[in-house]
Amino acid sequence: MIVDLNCDMGEGFGVYRLGDDAEMLTIATSANIACGFHAGDPLVMHETLRRAAANGVQAGAHPGFLDLWGFGRRPIHGERPADVEKAVLYQVGALLALAQDAGCPVRHVKTHGALGNIANEDADLALAVARAIRTLDRDLIFVVMPGLETERAGERLGLPLVREVYADRAYADNGNLVSRKLPGAVLHAPDAVAERVVRMLGDGAITCASGARIPTRIDSVCVHGDTPGAVAMAARLRDALAAQGIALRPMAAVIGA
Amino acid sequence: MIVDLNCDMGEGFGVYRLGDDAEMLTIATSANIACGFHAGDPLVMHETLRRAAANGVQAGAHPGFLDLWGFGRRPIHGERPADVEKAVLYQVGALLALAQDAGCPVRHVKTHGALGNIANEDADLALAVARAIRTLDRDLIFVVMPGLETERAGERLGLPLVREVYADRAYADNGNLVSRKLPGAVLHAPDAVAERVVRMLGDGAITCASGARIPTRIDSVCVHGDTPGAVAMAARLRDALAAQGIALRPMAAVIGA
Amino acid sequence: MIVDLNCDMGEGFGVYRLGDDAEMLTIATSANIACGFHAGDPLVMHETLRRAAANGVQAGAHPGFLDLWGFGRRPIHGERPADVEKAVLYQVGALLALAQDAGCPVRHVKTHGALGNIANEDADLALAVARAIRTLDRDLIFVVMPGLETERAGERLGLPLVREVYADRAYADNGNLVSRKLPGAVLHAPDAVAERVVRMLGDGAITCASGARIPTRIDSVCVHGDTPGAVAMAARLRDALAAQGIALRPMAAVIGA
Amino acid sequence: MIVDLNCDMGEGFGVYRLGDDAEMLTIATSANIACGFHAGDPLVMHETLRRAAANGVQAGAHPGFLDLWGFGRRPIHGERPADVEKAVLYQVGALLALAQDAGCPVRHVKTHGALGNIANEDADLALAVARAIRTLDRDLIFVVMPGLETERAGERLGLPLVREVYADRAYADNGNLVSRKLPGAVLHAPDAVAERVVRMLGDGAITCASGARIPTRIDSVCVHGDTPGAVAMAARLRDALAAQGIALRPMAAVIGA
Repeated sequence: MIVDLNCDMGEGFGVYRLGDDAEMLTIATSANIACGFHAGDPLVMHETLRRAAANGVQAGAHPGFLDLWGFGRRPIHGERPADVEKAVLYQVGALLALAQDAGCPVRHVKTHGALGNIANEDADLALAVARAIRTLDRDLIFVVMPGLETERAGERLGLPLVREVYADRAYADNGNLVSRKLPGAVLHAPDAVAERVVRMLGDGAITCASGARIPTRIDSVCVHGDTPGAVAMAARLRDALAAQGIALRPMAAVIGA
Repeated sequence: MIVDLNCDMGEGFGVYRLGDDAEMLTIATSANIACGFHAGDPLVMHETLRRAAANGVQAGAHPGFLDLWGFGRRPIHGERPADVEKAVLYQVGALLALAQDAGCPVRHVKTHGALGNIANEDADLALAVARAIRTLDRDLIFVVMPGLETERAGERLGLPLVREVYADRAYADNGNLVSRKLPGAVLHAPDAVAERVVRMLGDGAITCASGARIPTRIDSVCVHGDTPGAVAMAARLRDALAAQGIALRPMAAVIGA
Repeated sequence: MIVDLNCDMGEGFGVYRLGDDAEMLTIATSANIACGFHAGDPLVMHETLRRAAANGVQAGAHPGFLDLWGFGRRPIHGERPADVEKAVLYQVGALLALAQDAGCPVRHVKTHGALGNIANEDADLALAVARAIRTLDRDLIFVVMPGLETERAGERLGLPLVREVYADRAYADNGNLVSRKLPGAVLHAPDAVAERVVRMLGDGAITCASGARIPTRIDSVCVHGDTPGAVAMAARLRDALAAQGIALRPMAAVIGA
Repeated sequence: MIVDLNCDMGEGFGVYRLGDDAEMLTIATSANIACGFHAGDPLVMHETLRRAAANGVQAGAHPGFLDLWGFGRRPIHGERPADVEKAVLYQVGALLALAQDAGCPVRHVKTHGALGNIANEDADLALAVARAIRTLDRDLIFVVMPGLETERAGERLGLPLVREVYADRAYADNGNLVSRKLPGAVLHAPDAVAERVVRMLGDGAITCASGARIPTRIDSVCVHGDTPGAVAMAARLRDALAAQGIALRPMAAVIGA
């Protein structure tokens, strides 16, 4: 059995850096690379592409809202889907160009932060993102949340899909993440995190905070890279999966794309 | 005889607009589209691509320094060529992605403002720009200044070149533009502008402010769109060229690319 | 009888300009000056202060969300009030410093766009804005919407208040503006606009779209400067008020501050 | 004998942080706080002011070029002095407002990065900065480089001056810093750094890389906070000064302002 570990990377800007990309690149199998709107700049993007390639890690685009100050986490409501589509085209196109130079293929797209959260609940916005991906390359993988609008939009447009679960986030009964502002939304104990992921993969189902189960195919597990202890948690998770005979492979390999 | 009229367009940002693109699109034959660093955003870029296509105007990328406040006109010295190369890749890649959606091919690249001015005198920077273009598409036309480093870099990398003259800017004896800060740097009288362009095309030479002549092939004439009277000046120029039997065609047609 | 006409001004950035400030400064009696977050920069701010002083127009600060691309109109929810308070301090402080140099007193503060809309309905956010004002200068006037949270926050902190109505916006029954996205939200006919304002001042009440009336003191009328026909509409309004014997005075004079 | 240790702080933005301010605040006696143009934002600025006050560290403004991507280190030439003056007014005014809320007086102004480097050699730019300071508060201390244009501008306008030397930068014979791009420009060995500072203070002279000496009053020593080992170097320097009987005091105390 195989699964992917995906992680946000390249989230620096100018002199700033976030997370320990060098370490995480030795554990994760797919990298979601910020594209300059919520984080990232041409130099950081190129460097991250180059290092992903050197580590055999699959590179993907990680577009977000144009909001460096808020790191793309502030919910900006009321954006017109047609406008979001163009913002995604812009960001993914920029990464594709840098990837041509870095000699690193870009295989997937995953939305960042508030853009992803809103798209998971807004069918029109989810479709806008999916359309941007399809316009650029019908073989680009769309990373989606099982049971939510991003999955439906990807299915509707016939994109290759990777269904992911979050290693360290609590789930509401509708399959969406519990807001970071609520208590218990973020799981911190590496053992509990690893145990829950193993259970979800074994069950073929998301385990909600309430105990409810949402059956789904799971292709990838998302780990965060910008929190203290992120590398240790990812390593713990990798080892727990290995102990179950579950190997880590880039998401394209997992879905045979 | 044919020549191209190129003009910067899509130089808005958010609620802001600059120049009368709608009118200029009825006169110019090539549009240099700002890519979000010194001006432009995904929405303006897409709209400008769409309108260029609708008007039969050739679209090109117009990358600049990341300096919205200074509109890319402030000289930022000391940038590493390898960094500029990535910034150009980012911007042109973003436009290429939007162009895929807008159904409008991107045929050329022309540097904006201070980036162009510095590249014209700095061989390494000119090469960095040319390398970015070649990486993306060896058939992309590089718009260059005759006799300066951009022309040499384009020749060295074997890119299709369009050699341009400026309709309304005075020339120093080395073939570069007289700085905007010096008196007489910008020509304002439509008749004098038209007459000078006709003479340069007839002579096959740049006419310098000193009276000196620099023989060169001239494929395109640059008119500015962001000054009062810009449209009238461009129309006057078009008519003067027509009176000489010189027709306007997109730059790719002029060089047979 | 006297009333104030307030108008947003100085909404340019870098090379960009918005609205016809020169004309509007001959009609309006108070200017709300953008402070660099949703629009404005140090040069535009200084120039606007200087011109306001030259025209005898009262200058005020117009802080907004840090969102140049969205012109501060995009609703950014979930901002912590303590953070908004600091963002308002920053912006008003910057304007106060430029005003010291321009020799133009700053007499009022009015929130811009989405920040204002949200503050009108969110008591904590409204208090955060009012606290920032009080920290800087207890004599700074807070421009508020009658019956909403901004008015309550200003009353609670004891700030001098100016209660304003919008000349060209439809009102919901709760006294807030009808969203720009709904039909009929913006009034375009100068005569109807002028007539409605005259009626509201005569009645001492806001006239809602439903016909309902909300009694209130009205110290100032807001006219927009960034729409086509804005100057003509403001002039028409001024004349209609004059015909009723209502003179225009800066808001500080209206409330005797 | 007393001297000040000044250090740049509050150089984060949004989610980003730079340097170990918490540790450096236990060593340095004056903090130069970024004001939002090259780094810093209202939240970081307020937090830094609050922590400076809590540690008994003198707070000052650290204005720079509007260039977050380049961290204000990119030389932007050709800025009009009148424009720079307004940009400094804006930034220092914003900090003054936040300082009113944080209950932390702002006592000095020091220019950042490229703005400082250029001002040290450009009399008009140096005067523009000094004028902005004087407009806001004639008692604000201007931190200057001995023998260069900033010192001359400050003397001409009668501002209280603090003359500083850099602990870890090599000096050219004209008293300016050797460019970071040249070998040997930055000193890394804590012992050598401490020894050189002790010698400069004992001599009352700047020691140039060539061995030349430039006699000057020295009120403050600048240590950097954003490099690895910065805290250790500052601690080593503090101890070396203490061993010479030289105590650290905020710069205002050093010059008796």
